[in-house]
Amino acid sequence: MKVGGVAYRSIWLEPDGRSVGIIDQTALPHGFVTLPLTDLAGMCHAIRTMQLRGAPLIGAAAAYGMALALASDASAANLERAASALLATRPTAVNLRWAVEALRRELAAIPEARRGAAAYARAEQIAEEDVATNRAIGRHGLPLIRAAFARKSNQGPVNILTHCNAGWLATVDWGTALAPVFAAQEAGLPVHVWVDETRPRNQGAFLTAWELNAAGVPHTVIADNAGGHLMRKGEVDLCFVGTDRTTARGDVANKIGTYLKALAAKDNGIPFYVCLPSPTIDWTIESPDSIPIEERAGTEVSHIAGLTADGAVVSVRLVPEGSPVANPAFDVTPARLVTGLVTERGVAEASREGLLALFPERSGAAA
Amino acid sequence: MKVGGVAYRSIWLEPDGRSVGIIDQTALPHGFVTLPLTDLAGMCHAIRTMQLRGAPLIGAAAAYGMALALASDASAANLERAASALLATRPTAVNLRWAVEALRRELAAIPEARRGAAAYARAEQIAEEDVATNRAIGRHGLPLIRAAFARKSNQGPVNILTHCNAGWLATVDWGTALAPVFAAQEAGLPVHVWVDETRPRNQGAFLTAWELNAAGVPHTVIADNAGGHLMRKGEVDLCFVGTDRTTARGDVANKIGTYLKALAAKDNGIPFYVCLPSPTIDWTIESPDSIPIEERAGTEVSHIAGLTADGAVVSVRLVPEGSPVANPAFDVTPARLVTGLVTERGVAEASREGLLALFPERSGAAA
Repeated sequence: MKVGGVAYRSIWLEPDGRSVGIIDQTALPHGFVTLPLTDLAGMCHAIRTMQLRGAPLIGAAAAYGMALALASDASAANLERAASALLATRPTAVNLRWAVEALRRELAAIPEARRGAAAYARAEQIAEEDVATNRAIGRHGLPLIRAAFARKSNQGPVNILTHCNAGWLATVDWGTALAPVFAAQEAGLPVHVWVDETRPRNQGAFLTAWELNAAGVPHTVIADNAGGHLMRKGEVDLCFVGTDRTTARGDVANKIGTYLKALAAKDNGIPFYVCLPSPTIDWTIESPDSIPIEERAGTEVSHIAGLTADGAVVSVRLVPEGSPVANPAFDVTPARLVTGLVTERGVAEASREGLLALFPERSGAAA
Repeated sequence: MKVGGVAYRSIWLEPDGRSVGIIDQTALPHGFVTLPLTDLAGMCHAIRTMQLRGAPLIGAAAAYGMALALASDASAANLERAASALLATRPTAVNLRWAVEALRRELAAIPEARRGAAAYARAEQIAEEDVATNRAIGRHGLPLIRAAFARKSNQGPVNILTHCNAGWLATVDWGTALAPVFAAQEAGLPVHVWVDETRPRNQGAFLTAWELNAAGVPHTVIADNAGGHLMRKGEVDLCFVGTDRTTARGDVANKIGTYLKALAAKDNGIPFYVCLPSPTIDWTIESPDSIPIEERAGTEVSHIAGLTADGAVVSVRLVPEGSPVANPAFDVTPARLVTGLVTERGVAEASREGLLALFPERSGAAA
């Protein structure tokens, strides 16, 4: 996607052929900063502090992290160290584990001398596949928006509610939940996006609003509390969200608060779609209670950074001293609340049968 | 309740017998500031800008506003002007209308020379009745907490989730939703309160946390998004919230986001109680769609004030320039999601029949 007329992805190989460039997402929306990462420690730091985030993107980032590690030491011992360090950064999104384990397995099988180059090639391939996958998610999601437009007797715009950021910044490019929105924009279908602020880290207000602004997509930022009211008032036609991990039976872990919006959508008969690339499916688990839910620092709730009238970015305390804070970063939306899973192969019913119909090669996987 | 060892109410008659003292709630939690209000304009400003807020409190404040107006001009024309000005301040809470109309009706019936004194006396009476009412709400809510404690086999604490601020700052004293919590504390029942931050104005983080801190009640501040997850995990035993207007059939308008928590409570089999003094019941309406929902300034979403590391309170911009914002301040929770209405006369089923059983004198009211 373009930023100030220049095409960007959220992660790229720098011209030196070794370091990895990223957009520092903690500086958005008030500043646009790119960072070159030169080693594994830098990549682990970037993932942990959410300089880059989004399940698909941290999958690609972890692959590049493996490459950065092997560029300096391609030994089997370092391969294991790098994999462990990356796996310890963030627990909920499964894409990271998927990418790390793929590279660990594949690289261990080839001679040490070729591991570095192979790691970069594989990271590049994962990034390219993510872009193609998201384009396909956009193509499969577009008819859902078109159908909503038809239900409105072609009186637009189609009002789409989204939570957190599942736009191009959460992936290598195009996004998951926003891919159908960008596809609708390309197709000339009128859309308007309700952007949940998404406390505590405000990825909606900080990232999704910034993306939609840059792309010229009409949108309105709302407090997370407002979505239910808007649904009751008939002001939401569709919900599209992303996911960090989807169970084999279609339960969806996503940014904290997603479950509340799914309940409201169900209560008001509004379709609730989850958009995901297949590496986000954890075929090894059935029960949503098996998904580890990351508990992040309380300072993400007690403090927030914003722009002062003087143009400085300042962190301010919101919660009084002496009041404890809890900060679970994800919740689970049960499959029964999900209208459909929009994948690169099409729209699946949120069930074991629905997923296996699209991914029959998984039908032998452990139940 | 006590602040720094000194007993306070949220509104009081100053020693001059004419001006009205309030706690400036927009300065909390980082500063404790009291303001003397000397005229109607000051009171209207205080209500509109939420220097004082909470349905029961703005009822009492409106009564004092009438008194302030009549102290300088007790004419029938000024009585009407004062009533109109106060009614225009905030549309959703019905207590304000109830108090203004009571004073307008009663004062119009007495000689002009006695109206000023009568207005102060009536305002004082409304304030005193609110305190007694909230004490009674606390008494009727306490057995619900006791029952939850028993369900936990007397293994405490009872985890209570609340939204916004329905504590003593939202009333003249004691609060509505927090009255049972304070009663439990007095009774030695172990409680812990999950405090929804309550975007966009953060009345949970700013006011409820401050109140509970001051009262020594164990609590934890969470993002509004977190409540559903905590309920799914079994970490919420009860929900207690307030309301700004309740229909004659038990639907409840309250701070935006209440509906989402009620849905989650229902989905997880958790009792969801709404605590209210009877002046919050609007016996004239049946349909929740008849409740006017206040749309407040977008700057409440796009900006927030907090404390810098230097100890200054600074407003910062959160939403990027160019992104529009919407800010509906209330939503409606349908009666079907409400376990019970805790009033000064006891706990009513959230239905026309349930309310009339406690308030039989209303059975002749318009349907």
